[in-house]
Amino acid sequence: MDELIEAIAAKQNPSVVGLDPKPGIVPAEVISALADEVLHEVEGEEALPTLLATAYFEFNRAIIDAVADFVPAVKPQIAMYEALGSAGMDTYAMTCEYAKSRGLIVIGDAKRGDIGSTAGQYAAHLSGFANLSAYFEGENATGNSLPQSIKNLLKSSKNLDVWHEDSLTVNPYMGSDGVKPFIDEAVSHNKSIFVLLRTSNPSSKELQELILQDGKPVYEHMADLIENWGASNIGKHGYSKVGAVVGATHPEEGKRLRELMPHTFFLVPGYGAQGGTAQDVAGMFDANAEGAIVNSSRGIIGAWRKSEDYAKNQGNMSLDNILDIVRESASAAAKNMRDDLRHAVYR
Amino acid sequence: MDELIEAIAAKQNPSVVGLDPKPGIVPAEVISALADEVLHEVEGEEALPTLLATAYFEFNRAIIDAVADFVPAVKPQIAMYEALGSAGMDTYAMTCEYAKSRGLIVIGDAKRGDIGSTAGQYAAHLSGFANLSAYFEGENATGNSLPQSIKNLLKSSKNLDVWHEDSLTVNPYMGSDGVKPFIDEAVSHNKSIFVLLRTSNPSSKELQELILQDGKPVYEHMADLIENWGASNIGKHGYSKVGAVVGATHPEEGKRLRELMPHTFFLVPGYGAQGGTAQDVAGMFDANAEGAIVNSSRGIIGAWRKSEDYAKNQGNMSLDNILDIVRESASAAAKNMRDDLRHAVYR
Repeated sequence: MDELIEAIAAKQNPSVVGLDPKPGIVPAEVISALADEVLHEVEGEEALPTLLATAYFEFNRAIIDAVADFVPAVKPQIAMYEALGSAGMDTYAMTCEYAKSRGLIVIGDAKRGDIGSTAGQYAAHLSGFANLSAYFEGENATGNSLPQSIKNLLKSSKNLDVWHEDSLTVNPYMGSDGVKPFIDEAVSHNKSIFVLLRTSNPSSKELQELILQDGKPVYEHMADLIENWGASNIGKHGYSKVGAVVGATHPEEGKRLRELMPHTFFLVPGYGAQGGTAQDVAGMFDANAEGAIVNSSRGIIGAWRKSEDYAKNQGNMSLDNILDIVRESASAAAKNMRDDLRHAVYR
Repeated sequence: MDELIEAIAAKQNPSVVGLDPKPGIVPAEVISALADEVLHEVEGEEALPTLLATAYFEFNRAIIDAVADFVPAVKPQIAMYEALGSAGMDTYAMTCEYAKSRGLIVIGDAKRGDIGSTAGQYAAHLSGFANLSAYFEGENATGNSLPQSIKNLLKSSKNLDVWHEDSLTVNPYMGSDGVKPFIDEAVSHNKSIFVLLRTSNPSSKELQELILQDGKPVYEHMADLIENWGASNIGKHGYSKVGAVVGATHPEEGKRLRELMPHTFFLVPGYGAQGGTAQDVAGMFDANAEGAIVNSSRGIIGAWRKSEDYAKNQGNMSLDNILDIVRESASAAAKNMRDDLRHAVYR
């Protein structure tokens, strides 16, 4: 988590841009402009997924270019890409890789979770091929019977990254043996995770707010678990590699959780389109104005929809024109958010 | 859920085979045998992921061929494929498609979950491109500004499947607005979901067994929610499209949940390698010996490791030889499981 904290401090900007493309958020003009080229090369069932996946990537690249200089991190939501099949998954990986090449920290919003050995496979999001290579090493019969050519390939692929994230969101419904494999890989590879704690959506209360026999809500019990999972891996800024997701739509609970979880960094969704304000999230930061990063997706990547330039030129734009409008609108919206947060948080 | 119930009845076999490949479960001989061909075509960073993804598919095809005649369903665990990147995701989709072509019902074990509009994108697992096409239709500006060629493509792609599952496992941590989008698509496309309720792993108790102020454990409260989610979509055999995951490692709780949830079909992991027996799961079936399907993964797909033929021929096998051993061992193990369950359940 140290790298994220330092990137926030360097840019004086505790915000993360959610890269959640879908039709309607990605301008139809981008899809149209790429159609000839893509449909010339790809036919049949692959055509539409490949066209959308290509458009999503061009769109993401424009957003990343627009914000890389003053935003510390991006958070691609993998569901958007998974909806396109494996062409979309390629775009997800390429988006993460491109964001990293622009110096951004990448928080993969995958909300993965499963039990022990399966969680270990999902943890490849953090470890790349290092955990698969382990199966082939040592006394393990799997590795010993392989020919030398494959052993060499395994050796050279050991540091191969798969999805190119720095951090991953994780679902805790199955308890600690579903989360520990992610923590292990985060510690081994100097990455981090954010465990779902108090999500921003209205029905999160159906489970998370249930009152236990000791009078506490379920989410406070989860808060204890999460704080504990991080106890052995606290970094130099006082926060562990195990963060928590706490929605901006719960300002009072967020403030209390900040007190209960002094070593847990918060990823805060729900600002902007979902109704959370800078004032709502201010209490989720610590006394040093650290300890949280606030996400906005639609408010930034969809800002072009409210642009005057877009309204003026609609129906008559090249790919460069529309991407310029996307970049300018995203940059302005992301700067507004930064300034809004600075004002509320850095007092 | 009707199709699953009918397939179980037709084969008199309430079991599902988990397709969870990984190195060690997929014989090194399969990987070796495919190396020349794959590495001749693919170089660099793609080489190892492509080789493993190819080996996983050949392995899965052998398992599917071995069990298709007497097993009603398979359950690929998507984490195993996701660990390989998008090459692995291709293998996941191809595996689901191949299993369907062999008449099997495919339960995608993805444990996905997110809030509202994001869950709607994950629900493409059930809807294919139908839900994306909706963005381009009607009064929506996105669609109206597209050229005719793309409109035609959208039209012809409307029924495009993405991952080729019949059913999907879903995580309920975020409450009903994280689950409803999956239910909507299940209802629209005659598919089903299984919501995590009482998972088979030891630490599932950390959240699922917490006692609420009314004296009930969290999982019983979740059971009420899940039974309710299915109330409006009950099929002709009395079970809804919203099933639940209940581990074989909790026989007493499973029996009680069977009583509490008369319209909820159970997917039961934890048989075999995780310690659950046919006797343990018998109470999760209803009075007609319906209402549940029991999963085994390692016990079936890893059965070749205990084969005498394998021990005898190790180090000297063609691809056909090793796949024959995989098929024969999986078939025998799956028949044992079927007979074991028949004996305990069909009394």
